[in-house]
Amino acid sequence: MNTTLVCSGGLDSVSLAHVLAEQGRLSRIVSFDYGQRHRKELDFAKACARRLGVPFHLVDLSGLGAALNGSALTDDLDVPDGHYAEDSMRVTVVPNRNAIMLTIAFGIAAAKGDGAVAAAVHGGDHFIYPDCRPAFTASFEAMQRAALDGYADVALHVPFVHATKADIVTAGAAAGTPFADTWSCYKGGAVHCGRCGTCVERREAFHLAGHADPTVYADPDFWQSAIAAHAAGSA
Amino acid sequence: MNTTLVCSGGLDSVSLAHVLAEQGRLSRIVSFDYGQRHRKELDFAKACARRLGVPFHLVDLSGLGAALNGSALTDDLDVPDGHYAEDSMRVTVVPNRNAIMLTIAFGIAAAKGDGAVAAAVHGGDHFIYPDCRPAFTASFEAMQRAALDGYADVALHVPFVHATKADIVTAGAAAGTPFADTWSCYKGGAVHCGRCGTCVERREAFHLAGHADPTVYADPDFWQSAIAAHAAGSA
Repeated sequence: MNTTLVCSGGLDSVSLAHVLAEQGRLSRIVSFDYGQRHRKELDFAKACARRLGVPFHLVDLSGLGAALNGSALTDDLDVPDGHYAEDSMRVTVVPNRNAIMLTIAFGIAAAKGDGAVAAAVHGGDHFIYPDCRPAFTASFEAMQRAALDGYADVALHVPFVHATKADIVTAGAAAGTPFADTWSCYKGGAVHCGRCGTCVERREAFHLAGHADPTVYADPDFWQSAIAAHAAGSA
Repeated sequence: MNTTLVCSGGLDSVSLAHVLAEQGRLSRIVSFDYGQRHRKELDFAKACARRLGVPFHLVDLSGLGAALNGSALTDDLDVPDGHYAEDSMRVTVVPNRNAIMLTIAFGIAAAKGDGAVAAAVHGGDHFIYPDCRPAFTASFEAMQRAALDGYADVALHVPFVHATKADIVTAGAAAGTPFADTWSCYKGGAVHCGRCGTCVERREAFHLAGHADPTVYADPDFWQSAIAAHAAGSA
């Protein structure tokens, strides 16, 4: 079934692109410019589409910033360092972002005749993001069935929804994902900072998967102390 | 409860703006520029916000046109004349438009702390638009409860979902809606054409409501023959 993929250019969604391409079902990649600070990831999404030979759709939602304010991803607040933990990560949430991106992707899929929209939401995000939980993805698909009834039949494909980020590293590696050509860091510097929540989570995922991490980090050792501090805090 | 209203500048949503304002719950108006041919309606939405003294948010989705193609609202196909009937109206559907606009409105409402998003979807559209049916609005609200769980509590308010357009004229008139300052025509000329599906439906709604229609139509008499032809066709 031809599948439209929502891709941020990050490790999770680029891995899913390679998994779908290997299955012969990747038909297009859709990315969103919502004025995020780490816009560099969009270049990696575009490069992924080129590498896999599918059309790339960049949807400009940068005008939303004025209305969807209050997030460290789009304004001048400092991005917190450290492990993904509820208090520090709330600040990086753009309200309703996944639902907005998915409805647009479903519109594109319906217009193009694709049978599915894929997204790399995964278990590691359940803790903090309600719109990455199975309860959300199931109700989202039901809503889309009602919205497109009689016009299009588009499924929501979220193969990683019960997976950890380490599972994604394993699946992505099996599909030949060039992990060095993915971007996670929220700070958007020349190389990954190694200190923000996504850098720590990325480095930890390679460690847990037992796969070499090809990423260059400005601070390559911070992740271990961040995880130790997080573990001590939750003990 | 403070309510964010999705408003096109048309008769239905401007009427709902006045109903909500009279109830003291209208907090803001959100409109969408998706490259529609009848952009004139956006001026009427903005004028409505000014008249009612609430903020106006214009969300620029005009970049979606390239991806969401194949619709007479956004490309060079001719808009069909006549009564809303399934075959002629399919061409005016932008895939997934209501779901896209509503998810963005929910994001704005969540960011601003509003407790509801209102939309003027109504019974007269059930025939052709799946995303105007109660099955859609109920599943949409359930999806948003899951998406925003723990962050925001935003209801979907669709008071006209079981109403006809004539009912809306009656409700709008009771709330003092200046109907001449609303726009329905898909053709976007200097005055309403009187011949396209929305003009015929508008003129018919005033007739059925028994309310004087202040609209200036280029062809003021076409609606009667269109309705007669439609009735003969469905007999």
